[in-house]
Amino acid sequence: MKSDSTRIHEWIETLSTFTESNQPGYTRFSYTQEDVAAKKYLIKEMKRLNLAVSMDYLGNIFGRREGLKKDLSPIMVGSHIDTVKNGGKYDGLAGIATGLEIIKIMEYKDIRTNHPIEVVAFSEEEGGRFNSAFLGSKWFAGKINEEDISQFVDINNIELGEAIKSLDVLNDEVVRCKRKDNHLAAMIELHCEQGTVLENNQNSLGIVSTITGSSSFQVELIGEANHAGTIPMGMRKDAFFATSMISVELNRIAKKQSIHSVGTIGNISIKPNAYNIIPGEATFIMDIRSLDQRCMEEMIDHIRQYISEIAQKNGLIFKIKENHMENPVNLSDAIKYLLVENAEKRNYSYQIMGSGAGHDAIIINDLCPSAMVFVPSKDGRSHCKEEYSKPEDIAKGSDIILDTVLKLEEEFNNGNNNDRFGNE
Amino acid sequence: MKSDSTRIHEWIETLSTFTESNQPGYTRFSYTQEDVAAKKYLIKEMKRLNLAVSMDYLGNIFGRREGLKKDLSPIMVGSHIDTVKNGGKYDGLAGIATGLEIIKIMEYKDIRTNHPIEVVAFSEEEGGRFNSAFLGSKWFAGKINEEDISQFVDINNIELGEAIKSLDVLNDEVVRCKRKDNHLAAMIELHCEQGTVLENNQNSLGIVSTITGSSSFQVELIGEANHAGTIPMGMRKDAFFATSMISVELNRIAKKQSIHSVGTIGNISIKPNAYNIIPGEATFIMDIRSLDQRCMEEMIDHIRQYISEIAQKNGLIFKIKENHMENPVNLSDAIKYLLVENAEKRNYSYQIMGSGAGHDAIIINDLCPSAMVFVPSKDGRSHCKEEYSKPEDIAKGSDIILDTVLKLEEEFNNGNNNDRFGNE
Repeated sequence: MKSDSTRIHEWIETLSTFTESNQPGYTRFSYTQEDVAAKKYLIKEMKRLNLAVSMDYLGNIFGRREGLKKDLSPIMVGSHIDTVKNGGKYDGLAGIATGLEIIKIMEYKDIRTNHPIEVVAFSEEEGGRFNSAFLGSKWFAGKINEEDISQFVDINNIELGEAIKSLDVLNDEVVRCKRKDNHLAAMIELHCEQGTVLENNQNSLGIVSTITGSSSFQVELIGEANHAGTIPMGMRKDAFFATSMISVELNRIAKKQSIHSVGTIGNISIKPNAYNIIPGEATFIMDIRSLDQRCMEEMIDHIRQYISEIAQKNGLIFKIKENHMENPVNLSDAIKYLLVENAEKRNYSYQIMGSGAGHDAIIINDLCPSAMVFVPSKDGRSHCKEEYSKPEDIAKGSDIILDTVLKLEEEFNNGNNNDRFGNE
Repeated sequence: MKSDSTRIHEWIETLSTFTESNQPGYTRFSYTQEDVAAKKYLIKEMKRLNLAVSMDYLGNIFGRREGLKKDLSPIMVGSHIDTVKNGGKYDGLAGIATGLEIIKIMEYKDIRTNHPIEVVAFSEEEGGRFNSAFLGSKWFAGKINEEDISQFVDINNIELGEAIKSLDVLNDEVVRCKRKDNHLAAMIELHCEQGTVLENNQNSLGIVSTITGSSSFQVELIGEANHAGTIPMGMRKDAFFATSMISVELNRIAKKQSIHSVGTIGNISIKPNAYNIIPGEATFIMDIRSLDQRCMEEMIDHIRQYISEIAQKNGLIFKIKENHMENPVNLSDAIKYLLVENAEKRNYSYQIMGSGAGHDAIIINDLCPSAMVFVPSKDGRSHCKEEYSKPEDIAKGSDIILDTVLKLEEEFNNGNNNDRFGNE
């Protein structure tokens, strides 16, 4: 019973064609026409696999294969369907294709399970459009509600609540629900590593122990736009110079942490953005992550303090707004051991590792025992068009996830309740 | 014989109404509809003052009051008509209004001169649209030619040669010429100071000795866009972090110069500009100026070297393109002395000072003895909507410029040739 890498490859290739055409790489922002078209295709594929498809308010798509017993919670497999701006093919889609492949094999081999199995495609995981990660899975998990929706606005000032109306064209193809029942037995997500650890160690699979904590902050600095020639250096209120100081300091403190920690400024705009005018305003987003809670808190506290000092020194007003904050998460040890066991049985090279990226599994881990499997990323590249993971590696991941889903079934049927699979 | 501050005020107010309506402050980029409308109004005003109006290929406008003697070169008074993005009312327009006021008085008092007097409104002094300063005066001075035109492209990829076609609608209102005869007897430009020196010293007028050297460079850094969570700090090719280092260093070396020197990064764009992706590309413009040639060269050499080092350390490819380079210029001492003399006679408070900003007079100084008069800028603000200079101060400047134009006439008529008025 082996997953078919060609089939996995084709799903990824086809889904990746739904991309903003005038952007380099792959850009599939949530609720755009590309996203809606990708979802339409995915719904069709799910139906071909005899899944019952539903979609919730935020466009999360669930393809359900019923279980033999009534009233059992589903085991979920899948990932997210959106991309970052100018991203790659594999981030998200590899996990969705894995979900489809597992169903395909179960259908083909006529394997019936007591628990329902659900393939999921979460919306807006990356936060590319609304600058806030995990919106889809947060909605599913009930961590955001209708009254929170209005706070999310995209770069064109379109509110989330407005944007999701584009999904309505799918109403004829899919059962719509406000929020789906979120009782789950377990969740497993396959994802590309987005780093170089597996490649360097020549391992085909990574079994994730901890997912990094991740946070982002929008910082606004307001100084004074003025003539770039006449105002002496000491008398400037230069919002971009202050931003530069903060960027250098963020880099410095991330480097000195003992446990994997990173700090990035990936988004900035300045005003008036004319070469001969001292920038009077700068707005940027700081992304701060760590596998260790203490390191993350230390970095955030330090940089907040530093921003305040730099603003004062340069005569600037500043605002810091927390966009999102997820603490590091230890995934289910029990499922992790099953994944290890199955990788051993299949004789696939693997290692246990931390995840430097955040994933929907962080959110879902609050609902049920959750696990992640990584596949190698070529040259560690990700969030760019060069992103590549071998379909053969993804198929190996699919194999051990299917083995583990079936083993979980067995364990559950033997009366081991979910607690057994929680975090130890 | 006194200049009328109300009239000057009205010209500035009316001309400033030609601004891009959906931008804060005042934005009148060259060859836009606002620019063409401002020029149409100016041409009408010049005609009302009985001036013969002509416009050259790049849209520089010349209003000529004929002299009594044939074949004498004109004395020129004026400034530029374009603004920076989100700039102010006075930068440029104060000098044009002064030119109009001088003609108005000469008409009213029926003062005839042997030399022609020309009021000039130069185009594209700021470089706001084509990122290169003094294009209008450089065209007039023959420092750029038709074959150079194609290198100038605006942010929307419109070439200068294409953009200037918008001027054609003025062809019925004005004599068009490719390039006007540029033999001049002298040039005097009034401008707002754009700094705090005059205000701090409570002087109404500044008589400029030296104009700062000014240069700008477009820097491109190309690294690698990648996932902001998974790539360790030491393995990044982060184009924005490198930009920050360069920004901090530019600030440091400008501060340590002994003579007024400044360095600014006022314009930046990064790609893909998403908060959770390490920036793979950054393009920014460095503006470097100094009243002292040696300081300027030292800063430029140092920062070029530093960029190269930082690029190497961070695994980036870099390109540096010089956008413009003007050495510091000593203006005509002879005209400066006449201006001082006339300020003394009128009992106007004044001082001799350097100019931290570049001006068209730098370019025109190569053609003829040139001079500049500054008026105070409220709070030193400039290139922003708060920019303000008192019409009463501008009228004082207009007074001593008119006195000096007439005195120059006298000197020229006495047989003192232009050499007398060159740089000593």
